[in-house]
Order: sequence, then C-alpha cells, then structure tokens
Amino acid sequence: MIKDNVSYESISRAARRLRNHIVKTPLLKSQYVNQKLKTNLFLKAENLQTIGAFKFRGAMNTILQLPASVSKVVAWSSGNHAQAVAAAAKITGREATIVMPKDSPQTKLDGTAFWGATIVKYDRNTENREEIGKAIAQKNDATIIPPFDDVNVIIGQGTAGIECIEQLEEINVIPDIVLCCCGGGGLIAGISTAIRAKFEKTKIFSVEPENFDDTKKSLENNELISNSMNHKSICDALLAEKPGNITFGINKLNLTSGLSVTDNEALKAMNAAYKHFKIVLEPGGAVALAAAISGKIDIKNKNVLVIASGGNVDKNVFESCLKTETI
Amino acid sequence: MIKDNVSYESISRAARRLRNHIVKTPLLKSQYVNQKLKTNLFLKAENLQTIGAFKFRGAMNTILQLPASVSKVVAWSSGNHAQAVAAAAKITGREATIVMPKDSPQTKLDGTAFWGATIVKYDRNTENREEIGKAIAQKNDATIIPPFDDVNVIIGQGTAGIECIEQLEEINVIPDIVLCCCGGGGLIAGISTAIRAKFEKTKIFSVEPENFDDTKKSLENNELISNSMNHKSICDALLAEKPGNITFGINKLNLTSGLSVTDNEALKAMNAAYKHFKIVLEPGGAVALAAAISGKIDIKNKNVLVIASGGNVDKNVFESCLKTETI
Repeated sequence: MIKDNVSYESISRAARRLRNHIVKTPLLKSQYVNQKLKTNLFLKAENLQTIGAFKFRGAMNTILQLPASVSKVVAWSSGNHAQAVAAAAKITGREATIVMPKDSPQTKLDGTAFWGATIVKYDRNTENREEIGKAIAQKNDATIIPPFDDVNVIIGQGTAGIECIEQLEEINVIPDIVLCCCGGGGLIAGISTAIRAKFEKTKIFSVEPENFDDTKKSLENNELISNSMNHKSICDALLAEKPGNITFGINKLNLTSGLSVTDNEALKAMNAAYKHFKIVLEPGGAVALAAAISGKIDIKNKNVLVIASGGNVDKNVFESCLKTETI
Repeated sequence: MIKDNVSYESISRAARRLRNHIVKTPLLKSQYVNQKLKTNLFLKAENLQTIGAFKFRGAMNTILQLPASVSKVVAWSSGNHAQAVAAAAKITGREATIVMPKDSPQTKLDGTAFWGATIVKYDRNTENREEIGKAIAQKNDATIIPPFDDVNVIIGQGTAGIECIEQLEEINVIPDIVLCCCGGGGLIAGISTAIRAKFEKTKIFSVEPENFDDTKKSLENNELISNSMNHKSICDALLAEKPGNITFGINKLNLTSGLSVTDNEALKAMNAAYKHFKIVLEPGGAVALAAAISGKIDIKNKNVLVIASGGNVDKNVFESCLKTETI
C-alpha cells in the first residue's frame, strides 16, 4: 500500500477514488441560527454519510488501496470507525473483526453487526483495545485499519474538506472560521490540510469534550498531552487518550487553537440541529456546533464552517437533548 | 402574472428561476432499510429545504413572478405553506399576513413569526380559513398565495421532481415506484408531471393519512370526494378537506392509485428516518416512507423514490416516534 503524504493533492486523488463510494453530504444553512447568532454558518452534514458518520471516508480510502490478497481486516473503535471498517470490508468482499467497548451505544453495535463484522467486546476500564486488536491481527493474518493515526485514513477524512471547499466556492464564500470535532484528530488533520491549501487566512479550531481536550492542551504545550481518563462524557466518539503522532504533527501546523465544550452544551447543539437543521446528531458529532452556539469563540459577522461529524445516537440520549433549552 | 400550464417545460423553467433561492436537497439511501425491505429506496429529503419543507418551492416560484407593485401577500395554512409564504415575502421585500389554525404545531407558529409575517389565528372547527383570508386580501389589497390549487404553486413544487430525475439519472436509476404524500395534492401534481414526462412506466402513488384519503377516494370514484372532517390525525400538514380542482385534474391523469397510512405507521416511519437516515421528519412528511415500510405496496426488488416532505415537528410528537418499534 502506498503511504502518500497528507496534502491537498493526495486528498484530491482520494476524493476521485471515493467518488462512487461515498455520499457528497450537503452544506446546510439555517436563517434562524444565522439571525440569532448574527453569523453566516454552514453545517457540513456528515451524519448523512454512509454508516452515519465521516469515518467511512477514511476506512474506505484505506481499504480500497489494500492488495487483493488481503482478505481480512481488524480495527478497534467505540463505534463509528467500527461501522466504517465493517462496511468498507463488506463492500470490498473482505472479513472484518472489530474490537469495541462493551458500553458502546447499542446503535453502533447493531450497525457494526449489520455489516457482517465479527465483534469482540472489551472493558474500557480494564483492557487495552490496541493489544487485543493486534493479537487478533497476528492470529488471523489480518490487516489493521487504524482509527486515526494513519496517512491513508487522514487523507480519506480530508475528502470532507475538499467537498466543503467546492461547496463554498460555488457560492463564493471564503470561511473565516472552521470548527471541527477532534478525538484522535484524524478528521481535522485531513480537513485542515485541505482548507489551509486553499484559504490561507482561515482560522481552524479543534473542538473536544471537556476533560478530553488533549489536542487543545497539546497545542498549548506544543507536545503530546494525555487526558487523565478518569472522567466520563456522553461524547463516546471523541474519547481518545491522546493525539496521534501523525495527526498532531499536522494539526500543530494547521490549527489556530483548541476549544472544549461540556456534555450539556453538546446536548443543546443536538437540539439545535434537530430544531433548525432537521438532522440527527450524536453528542460527539455536535461538539463543533456546540462551540459556535455556546459562544466559545466570536463568530459574529463571520463565515463559519462547522463540521457535524456523525449521527449514531441511542434514543435515551436523543431524548435528553430534546429536554434541553436551545437557541 | 403569467399562468403557465403545468408541464415538464414550465417546471424546468421554474427550476432555473429558483436555482439561487432553494436548496437542492439530497437523495438519501440506507443500506439497512434496503436490505431489510429487499428494495432499492431513495429518500428525497425535503425536510432540509428552506423553512423545513417543500412548500418553499411553490411559494417562492409564485411570489418571484408577482409584479413589483404587489407589496402584500396573504395565505392560509396549517404551518408549512405559512412559513414558506412568510419567507418568500420577506426575501422579496413584501408584507405577509398568514391565517393559521390555533392548534398549529408551535414550531410552525414560531417559524412563521420568525419570518416577520402577521399571524391571524382561527378555529379549525368553527371558522373557515379561506373566508378569513379572502377578507384580509380585500381589505389590505393583498395578493392571495394559494396553498395548492394554483398553477404556479404546483409548478414550483414540481421542481423537487426535476431534481429527483437529475439525481436518479446521475446514477442510472429509473424509478419503478414513486411514493409522495398528499394533502391538497400540489406536490404530487408537480412531481408526477415531471416524472411522467421522463419515465413512462413509473407507478406513482399518493399517500394520505387514514380518514383523510380524499385523493385516494377521488381517484377510485373519478370525481372529487371530500373527507368527513370528523376525524383527527397527527399529520397536520395533510388535512385538506378535498383535492383541488387543478391538482385532481392533473393527478387523475398521472397517478396509479392512492394509499393511506395510520398515525402510528407515520410515527414508525419518523423513527426509521431518525434511526436509519439521520433526519428529522414531521408526521405528514413521513407518510410516504410509512407506506413503503408498512408494506402498503410491494416494493421488493424495485427502485423506489420516496418523498420526505417536511420536518417541522414539536418535541412531544417527536418523543412519541422514538417510543415506537421500527425496522
């Protein structure tokens, strides 16, 4: 497999490679939100991507480049990368084994099973998913598809950025600000590379759950900082322990700084997405919108691109979002 | 104002007229739904249209063609046409007065007020909205924008059909079946005209709420049949008393027959839209999907185009949909 550099050119090539496989997701607007926040906000609806999250881009980009001789893949994930690898494996005629935490949202466990993957459950608190995954890979002679710290995965996620650029150029909009969720940093590494190549002055911010703001802290300290992992968050998709080496290497060049939001702010953003954009977001998928809505950064009179990264959420959590007060 | 005929050509012209004003809404797919129902279903997400429903197409097409001398418009509507006329009036610098039932969903009352319209409330059971609207039009020298039985409104709604045709042609799909909600019949009159011009053999079905299936009965009897209006339904957007003269004249030529669904089937379809398509639908916006899911018609091994027409739904109703069991 060619390990290309992460660049606008390699992301463009991936966009062509993925053209017939991925959904070109829409860029949504709400006049109400814009008037209320005195801004010009565009929401990239990656919840409408295959498997309900952007992760399919990176998984499919990686798996499409595997040699035909590779018949088995393995991955670890709380649920979106799990479904993405399961789907990409199924579509390309491969077997997938996915290591998932026991407390993954049911919808993510169901989604992964739907695509025919073998699921191996582990305990987030006592077991190490990488060790389990690597042992399976060795035993089964399977290829590991990393969740974020991999060049082909990052390039695949970056295709969401290329789409945003095309969609904004069609309406002659240059983004002043980009807000993107950040777990391990794969999505924002890809998107920021694409955006940075086209729009030099755009400020790009990672958005993380409170207490899981390892990228924010790493950017502030210019070195890899880990989360304590003694906290809990409903943003199950964004609970990486620390930034990846590759992703942080890219993000420290591209990002302006990091932001964080509380679980309640994420729920309010899910409610706003329901009410004003008519889409379903999961907590982790709503943190970038949460940063915009909860005033973590001044977005007045600015063109703001917000990435809504996924919509795989269990009913009880969605019911909680409906009970919040939102804009 | 030119009163054009409803034809593929007039709808194409409207699509060009509306290009910079409307959202080209996506055609969504769910592998899960397709596998579960053994079908190939495409969901046109008009809930992502400006004001959260297709109604903006017809209202904007009509209002864009008003002479500049017309500074005031009036309309009656349970809520989606209300918001659509309010928005189109605001955008084109006109004043709108909207006659709405007192029991409209709060989100629709709020949405109409947001666009700066004057709202006049009436009682569905004791008052006649058309009489109230016509009196206001006369008093204020305002132009009436009819909810469905109007050539320019129908042509505007038909632009959703042109988009579906383009989106299906891009992927070389010819629809075997089209399922579309039906209140007064404006949307399906427009869409069926577009579809019929391109795909001769496609079967097109109206879908209505149980007890409000006036188009179904009118098609069966080949004459206008009214609903008794002694029933209730949560599908507030589809409670017209009888088909329009113009819409029925078109629909009786284009439609195969009519289907109806219960409120509970609509709720289950809203849940499926939430779970598998990650979008928010209102009950009336989900009836076409409900017909597909609840087996009202054989969709096995067929290409099925389903119109999801709107997503303006109050929280308590959405919570009810989450409590249903769905596919």
